[in-house]
Amino acid sequence: MTLELKQMMDGLRAACPLVHHITNYVTVNDCANMTLAAGASPVMADDPKEAADMTATAQALVINIGTLNERTISSMLAAGRRAKRKGIPVVFDPVGCGATAFRTETARTILREVRPSVVRGNISEIGSLFGLDARTKGVDASSEDAGRDALTLARDAAQSWGCVVAVTGAEDIVTDGRGGFAIDNGCAAMGRITGTGCMCTSVTAAFCGAFPDRLLEASAAALVFIGLSGEIAWEAAKERGLGSFHGALFDVASRMTGDRLEKEANYHET
Amino acid sequence: MTLELKQMMDGLRAACPLVHHITNYVTVNDCANMTLAAGASPVMADDPKEAADMTATAQALVINIGTLNERTISSMLAAGRRAKRKGIPVVFDPVGCGATAFRTETARTILREVRPSVVRGNISEIGSLFGLDARTKGVDASSEDAGRDALTLARDAAQSWGCVVAVTGAEDIVTDGRGGFAIDNGCAAMGRITGTGCMCTSVTAAFCGAFPDRLLEASAAALVFIGLSGEIAWEAAKERGLGSFHGALFDVASRMTGDRLEKEANYHET
Amino acid sequence: MTLELKQMMDGLRAACPLVHHITNYVTVNDCANMTLAAGASPVMADDPKEAADMTATAQALVINIGTLNERTISSMLAAGRRAKRKGIPVVFDPVGCGATAFRTETARTILREVRPSVVRGNISEIGSLFGLDARTKGVDASSEDAGRDALTLARDAAQSWGCVVAVTGAEDIVTDGRGGFAIDNGCAAMGRITGTGCMCTSVTAAFCGAFPDRLLEASAAALVFIGLSGEIAWEAAKERGLGSFHGALFDVASRMTGDRLEKEANYHET
Repeated sequence: MTLELKQMMDGLRAACPLVHHITNYVTVNDCANMTLAAGASPVMADDPKEAADMTATAQALVINIGTLNERTISSMLAAGRRAKRKGIPVVFDPVGCGATAFRTETARTILREVRPSVVRGNISEIGSLFGLDARTKGVDASSEDAGRDALTLARDAAQSWGCVVAVTGAEDIVTDGRGGFAIDNGCAAMGRITGTGCMCTSVTAAFCGAFPDRLLEASAAALVFIGLSGEIAWEAAKERGLGSFHGALFDVASRMTGDRLEKEANYHET
Repeated sequence: MTLELKQMMDGLRAACPLVHHITNYVTVNDCANMTLAAGASPVMADDPKEAADMTATAQALVINIGTLNERTISSMLAAGRRAKRKGIPVVFDPVGCGATAFRTETARTILREVRPSVVRGNISEIGSLFGLDARTKGVDASSEDAGRDALTLARDAAQSWGCVVAVTGAEDIVTDGRGGFAIDNGCAAMGRITGTGCMCTSVTAAFCGAFPDRLLEASAAALVFIGLSGEIAWEAAKERGLGSFHGALFDVASRMTGDRLEKEANYHET
Repeated sequence: MTLELKQMMDGLRAACPLVHHITNYVTVNDCANMTLAAGASPVMADDPKEAADMTATAQALVINIGTLNERTISSMLAAGRRAKRKGIPVVFDPVGCGATAFRTETARTILREVRPSVVRGNISEIGSLFGLDARTKGVDASSEDAGRDALTLARDAAQSWGCVVAVTGAEDIVTDGRGGFAIDNGCAAMGRITGTGCMCTSVTAAFCGAFPDRLLEASAAALVFIGLSGEIAWEAAKERGLGSFHGALFDVASRMTGDRLEKEANYHET
């Protein structure tokens, strides 16, 4: 199957979905700016008194536990349930799952209670959420720690959870448990700045908000979008360094076109 | 009336007022850096145990409800009251007012209890705070949703609330209910990165902190400052994209001069 | 004594220590990115239910009270105690100490209960924490307010607290109460963007995490690293402005080498 990347990109920008985020305070500014660069509109609201109401105004919901705290767990659950009831996609990023018992248990509670539409994480996080005995080193990917390969894990998790699962790393895997894609866009420098994983999750929610009936393709398009933006940005900035790379990532993303996505996407079906 | 923009710019930089912010975690870093670029000094402190005490050390207070949460509402109220008692300006940004009942009610409570010196928002937010049946799409401007034009709304609100009101959009309106200004500096790209509204509020507080007896002119100067910075930054960065635009905004603001403000300001009295 | 800067830089990058931060939401993104640029790995987690557990996975801990709030004080104390028990360095940044009673008292509680390995602040903050009657203007340095010179203060505090103390300003002082260093790298523009102090603390923790038995030298290396990065970045960006300076700081830091540190370090023993 060929991804309709031009249609996806143009459709996202035409729809400009509102993406409600309950997310961490480390990368939230990057998530907002990347959501805008992709062509969607971000809103962040995490108080239990309004989280679900804000979700009711949105076309997609991000739940990101990067700086998980007790105050907002109930917001995450309430917003997640409202999103499901409303029929809009919920994209869950179990940041750092496996690093502490609190984080792992909360991630599992969210998975069970909300039943997200898409789960995106690195192989340690997804492995830990799935119950494998992986260890997460902080919130960064550590491919060697994982006991299985990403493709098998993603498929098993997607089937078990009944949703799309994206395992990102040197190669990104995304699957609904039946078919899927392996995406080779991206570059190692994306692991040397904070927030590329979180931004990937936000952009996934943006594409899913525009194409709620095509979650697998929308998620794959998001992975291509972020990976290709990173590749091009690094090529432009690598002689200057990580600050320029960070800025260039938003430059490239904001000027990305459907044609360029189609031309430079690097993926195959799995 | 002609705005004394050179006097305002030089006066702000000479005074270097301390601007206490109780604000959101999405754009707080941008607010701090823009406050510094304008020539003031930022401090952020939001715990109920110290918010009012921090205000007591400052020359202006920003209350921004972007990521409103129950924990800091009492801080906002206590800091606001302390500022009023001390006689320093309070600039209120009712981010997303109208998007949820919690947000609208809290914004109205702050308005009523604190009686801010300046309120700045887009037309949906100000309309909703004023009691019009506008709908806010997330926290972004949506001029078509508003039932009246910005000038009438700003005047009515300013008279009703007894303060300066700034309604920002393609054209910015600022009024004390009698006289006022319409400002045409700015560019559409400012809506494509997060934080330009919040930064406008922070800079308004910076100018008001330096000129507490001239709140209307100080607020107008802030709108010119941010709008012109955005215009120049976009001209410099538009071929690169939104990441470069974001960086250029701080470049231009930090090098803005009173002479340039006077020369390139684009406003008229209303 | 000559600092072994090349050994320190290379050793940090080889060790890639995980640096757990309990820090403020204003500069947290900069702290994460600077930690990465220096060659370490950041993780941020502040909930009482997981803070100490996250520390248990790390090689160093940062406690930064920039946006101090009651919810995370117990996290700071628990994480600090766990770090000490585990034998990893705790670097404490008493941001704004002296500005409010709550901040000063909490900073003293952390000092007493955790007994940090390194304390870094400006002269007002360290003076206030030490009990001098200094006044902090917001969170920025105000050297004139201090009643003693930085070197005497740093020595006295280091002896009294039994730890390394760094007092940063136009000249940076770092001492363990016996020997120490005065470092002249850096530039005034570092005070015109937010976060350089916090980033200095994060990088101090990174170096200390890699060299837990050589805290004085590691802290000095961190001050040279940040100061020199700032100097070079300002030279490259000063004609553009503060936005470019901010980006260039990460560019330079991410490309810093041990050889360059050795060649351009500007310090003497005290």
